[in-house]
Amino acid sequence: MIKAGIIGASGYAGCELLRILLMHPEAEVTAISSHSYTGKKIYDLYPNFYQVCDLEFIEDTEVIEKADIIFASLPHGLSEKYAKTCVEKGKKFIDLGADFRLDKEEDYQKWYGLDYNLPELHKNQVYGLPEVNRDKIKDATIIGNPGCYPTTITLGLYPLLKNKLNVSQKIIIDSASGTTGAGKNLSDGMHFPRCNESFHPYKVGVHRHTPEIEQELSKMNEKDVHITFVPHLLPVDRGIVSTIYVPVDKSLEETYETYVEAYKNEQFVRVLPLGQVADLKFVKASNYCDISLHMDERDHTLIVVSTIDNMVKGSAGQAVQNMNIMYGLDENTGLNLVAPSF
Amino acid sequence: MIKAGIIGASGYAGCELLRILLMHPEAEVTAISSHSYTGKKIYDLYPNFYQVCDLEFIEDTEVIEKADIIFASLPHGLSEKYAKTCVEKGKKFIDLGADFRLDKEEDYQKWYGLDYNLPELHKNQVYGLPEVNRDKIKDATIIGNPGCYPTTITLGLYPLLKNKLNVSQKIIIDSASGTTGAGKNLSDGMHFPRCNESFHPYKVGVHRHTPEIEQELSKMNEKDVHITFVPHLLPVDRGIVSTIYVPVDKSLEETYETYVEAYKNEQFVRVLPLGQVADLKFVKASNYCDISLHMDERDHTLIVVSTIDNMVKGSAGQAVQNMNIMYGLDENTGLNLVAPSF
Amino acid sequence: MIKAGIIGASGYAGCELLRILLMHPEAEVTAISSHSYTGKKIYDLYPNFYQVCDLEFIEDTEVIEKADIIFASLPHGLSEKYAKTCVEKGKKFIDLGADFRLDKEEDYQKWYGLDYNLPELHKNQVYGLPEVNRDKIKDATIIGNPGCYPTTITLGLYPLLKNKLNVSQKIIIDSASGTTGAGKNLSDGMHFPRCNESFHPYKVGVHRHTPEIEQELSKMNEKDVHITFVPHLLPVDRGIVSTIYVPVDKSLEETYETYVEAYKNEQFVRVLPLGQVADLKFVKASNYCDISLHMDERDHTLIVVSTIDNMVKGSAGQAVQNMNIMYGLDENTGLNLVAPSF
Amino acid sequence: MIKAGIIGASGYAGCELLRILLMHPEAEVTAISSHSYTGKKIYDLYPNFYQVCDLEFIEDTEVIEKADIIFASLPHGLSEKYAKTCVEKGKKFIDLGADFRLDKEEDYQKWYGLDYNLPELHKNQVYGLPEVNRDKIKDATIIGNPGCYPTTITLGLYPLLKNKLNVSQKIIIDSASGTTGAGKNLSDGMHFPRCNESFHPYKVGVHRHTPEIEQELSKMNEKDVHITFVPHLLPVDRGIVSTIYVPVDKSLEETYETYVEAYKNEQFVRVLPLGQVADLKFVKASNYCDISLHMDERDHTLIVVSTIDNMVKGSAGQAVQNMNIMYGLDENTGLNLVAPSF
Repeated sequence: MIKAGIIGASGYAGCELLRILLMHPEAEVTAISSHSYTGKKIYDLYPNFYQVCDLEFIEDTEVIEKADIIFASLPHGLSEKYAKTCVEKGKKFIDLGADFRLDKEEDYQKWYGLDYNLPELHKNQVYGLPEVNRDKIKDATIIGNPGCYPTTITLGLYPLLKNKLNVSQKIIIDSASGTTGAGKNLSDGMHFPRCNESFHPYKVGVHRHTPEIEQELSKMNEKDVHITFVPHLLPVDRGIVSTIYVPVDKSLEETYETYVEAYKNEQFVRVLPLGQVADLKFVKASNYCDISLHMDERDHTLIVVSTIDNMVKGSAGQAVQNMNIMYGLDENTGLNLVAPSF
Repeated sequence: MIKAGIIGASGYAGCELLRILLMHPEAEVTAISSHSYTGKKIYDLYPNFYQVCDLEFIEDTEVIEKADIIFASLPHGLSEKYAKTCVEKGKKFIDLGADFRLDKEEDYQKWYGLDYNLPELHKNQVYGLPEVNRDKIKDATIIGNPGCYPTTITLGLYPLLKNKLNVSQKIIIDSASGTTGAGKNLSDGMHFPRCNESFHPYKVGVHRHTPEIEQELSKMNEKDVHITFVPHLLPVDRGIVSTIYVPVDKSLEETYETYVEAYKNEQFVRVLPLGQVADLKFVKASNYCDISLHMDERDHTLIVVSTIDNMVKGSAGQAVQNMNIMYGLDENTGLNLVAPSF
Repeated sequence: MIKAGIIGASGYAGCELLRILLMHPEAEVTAISSHSYTGKKIYDLYPNFYQVCDLEFIEDTEVIEKADIIFASLPHGLSEKYAKTCVEKGKKFIDLGADFRLDKEEDYQKWYGLDYNLPELHKNQVYGLPEVNRDKIKDATIIGNPGCYPTTITLGLYPLLKNKLNVSQKIIIDSASGTTGAGKNLSDGMHFPRCNESFHPYKVGVHRHTPEIEQELSKMNEKDVHITFVPHLLPVDRGIVSTIYVPVDKSLEETYETYVEAYKNEQFVRVLPLGQVADLKFVKASNYCDISLHMDERDHTLIVVSTIDNMVKGSAGQAVQNMNIMYGLDENTGLNLVAPSF
Repeated sequence: MIKAGIIGASGYAGCELLRILLMHPEAEVTAISSHSYTGKKIYDLYPNFYQVCDLEFIEDTEVIEKADIIFASLPHGLSEKYAKTCVEKGKKFIDLGADFRLDKEEDYQKWYGLDYNLPELHKNQVYGLPEVNRDKIKDATIIGNPGCYPTTITLGLYPLLKNKLNVSQKIIIDSASGTTGAGKNLSDGMHFPRCNESFHPYKVGVHRHTPEIEQELSKMNEKDVHITFVPHLLPVDRGIVSTIYVPVDKSLEETYETYVEAYKNEQFVRVLPLGQVADLKFVKASNYCDISLHMDERDHTLIVVSTIDNMVKGSAGQAVQNMNIMYGLDENTGLNLVAPSF
């Protein structure tokens, strides 16, 4: 059994990870921590765990001691020290936050306002998107688990950019996310009567996932890709839909074949038959990314719709997928979760 | 591997059952049918199954041929003939509908407007509520899987009535159910703009689950129990909450101890600590029934709150629990589903 | 034009009152205050008022100066001093909070934990339920505007209790309220991912509206009426439904006639035709209270369903109705609001 | 009093129009019709009108007889004959459907699959967007009331295109609409458990509002404007948000000034202060269109967010605004509806 520890298990990503790992046949969660709730039981905070999991929030250092692989789900700027300890002790580290996703320190400085305190650590970080970086993940010690929006967008554009089917380096991305993406901290915007029956963009053109998306798209395309990215807040619990606009010169059918080919061996990416439309309803609570392709034939604008459950493929599920790869397990171990039909 | 077949797999209960069985380690779904969709694939109807399950809706008779245990999820009045064939062929039959729940034909006639065509069959039917009838279920051939409302109510009152803590045979039950309870058939009441942001009772005092509830409560209490039962339609996808009002003469603490004792060996019934309130959020997508107890001290009215996921413990999950018992498996095989924290 | 001032206009009831008064043809809001937002514009807090209303939150004392009638929407325990000033200055005072609803100081002490500091004031307070107390409201100086739950319940039981059709003094009341009932203060329970797709009772048997309800029901019935009252939190923005269980000995038809007769001259209470069910959808954003009657014929339990918009008839709308009566206006002036059909 | 008639009053737009006109001080609804419900009362279909409006659905011809201005809310292809009768009888006609919006018959043929049977009528049709065509509306006999999506988009781009601030004729438009946009006809996609907690695009690149949008944008810009338009279905009752991407060379501040100037005399268009984001919550149930402007400074992509209530400014409210103009009333007569704060 893999011994897994979770630092920051009181947040939404952390407790979803705990939930998934509790159902994983080859892993055991040996310890969890949370700065705000040390000494409390997980079920004091989340009653869904009552009589299911008896774990108590303990100190971070103990979590590292008790586990072979450590997951951290923390506000940005806090993960480096845990990663360092893990490296020193020969343990694996998967960061669900943003601290190990950006290759260039200047991007981190610009978008997150902080320096890399331990720049050496970042030389070996691997961007944990299995469908693109599987081989590097196998041997990685530090994984930067991708952001939720970036997962939909990089998977939605990978076949296209890798094969240079795009005729412009400029891409418009319009996304919408359920409210769990904003986490458990209270805010006016998440107050039920304010959020329910509403819809609006936020952080228009300045969302912190922008550099992460551009970094990964540019690597795929081997050219600088520029995006305009506008996220919206959707009054649902879970799920992200990204609608992506990109000029191409191939036909819809040719493009579709490229996508089918690119993902033919992937268990968690489903390219829907032409004519169907991806819908977050049918990936909810699963680790799938569903992609549908559409064309505005009048001027050859390809429209890619890419959807995931932000808490699973967009966070905790993808982290488990990375763990499975690192331990040589079947990639879907503990992840054969089927979305409900309704 | 248990070979399971589902007759009526295109309905909500049927496809939820398929979903749960696909994740069950000891069972395999060998065939499914649906009168309306014969020849179609399950994923044509529910895209969540795309690349997950390749089953095609076939004829009912073939489903019975190909399986050892047959689940039926049909409108009332249709299950007897399938049960008869199963009995004749030595197969097990679990009916998710109402046809094998009522002991007295006159109740079925009165509330469902139909006769029993094969009355012999009903002599051996077992009401599939494991926490009450586990021993009978072990050897049963025909199981009447309990209704969703009755599951919350019978589990909510079992310790009380069995121990005769109630001082009146009259009980008021106010319940609310999510919309999946009404199934997939279109109706004005389920049209999104009509249903969303609404709340109202329906079938006030005349819901068909009434005789099923009274039958089971009366057996527990060894006296005729009368209920007034009012279900409400809740604008959410899943879940039932029943709030039950019953005069008692014991204190809250004594009553609580009786509940804890009654369910101490049950995996799927959680009696919440006093002071907590059961909430459907924390049983959603799981097979748990959460129960909380409260007292209006001013006149000793006990208030029992009992909640389940109507599609899991209230239907498909309970059916799988029954199957596990019938096959001597651990009762939670394939059912260790943890509700999400949000 | 009536000059109206609102103390506590930044809360939900206060700003809904402002919204309604802005559309009132005979009233003008001359001033608003809010302790937390003094110096801000109303539209800084609620953008729906942008270019609609230019009012700035000012000091409470100025609000009283600038208005003839003062509405207060404050946490309990704060209203007496404003009422006193209004009385001294010959102004009218309508309290949307709980401070002027209870006749007996001991009830206030027991349920709210505070004394009456100015007991003299309470001798002249009038419970502002127009359908019951219209004559007293006409000449009142201090109105205690009813609570939202009590409004549904008192209107739902008035014809019954006044005519002594109930055969028991014990009544079970199961209610559900939309989230605006909890106000704008942030809390875990109102965080969108926690509240959405959930349902649960709260303050079971101990909600502070209990003494207010019992006080008014007992006056109607001229006997002490005891209730068990359980409110639930409904994941919608607005609306309350109360489902009330009361034994009677009259038939449903006779009872219905009593209700029709009792409300035949009331503009804002609609007794629905027998066979229909009251639904909050059809009173939303209006000042109506819809009532439907049902009978469990098996043991003569009458079930009354009573629904209002908690922010209109349950708060701001009823306050305006009271104002109209106090000023001799047609009672529906500014209140001919029709609920949307969807 | 203006005598207004509504043909097709049983649909969502029709009954919302009725609701608004019932609160209009200068208009009276004298007759309504509905092919499916002739002989029924409006409140048989929509209980919100019980004791509010006693109108019965009568024959279309009678509606025209009894009114001076006739509104039609019908499936496309049915309005011409009513328009013809109105013209002959000297009555005004406002079509809430699509039959009088397109200038070129070939567009109507291509997108709606039908010919103009009475092409003469279309020569005098006026596109009823008051902020752009107010002068023509004054004297119009036949108004094509704009579509809901087109209203957000044309108002969102009018100042930009009229002043030629766009540097490309290609515009990307990503919109989301609440479910009332799909009307009251039952469909799988609107079944509550299917629609709730979901989000997906539909009619990607082929929505029938495309030619209407391009027609109006091209007229404003005096050049052919091409759009790629992708609508999404939002699980809320009401409201549309359009997020529009258009390259410009002016700064955000200069662009903003142009918008403020363009709409300075408009009552129903609010250009939000820079830094704020338009949200459908704050226009709901009102006739406002809220617009916010944003810039991706990295490559000068202007992002316009434009939001309305699809049933008010996107349909019934705009129709009343047009009626007010045609009758020389203040444009906001009966339309001073303020959105709720929650």
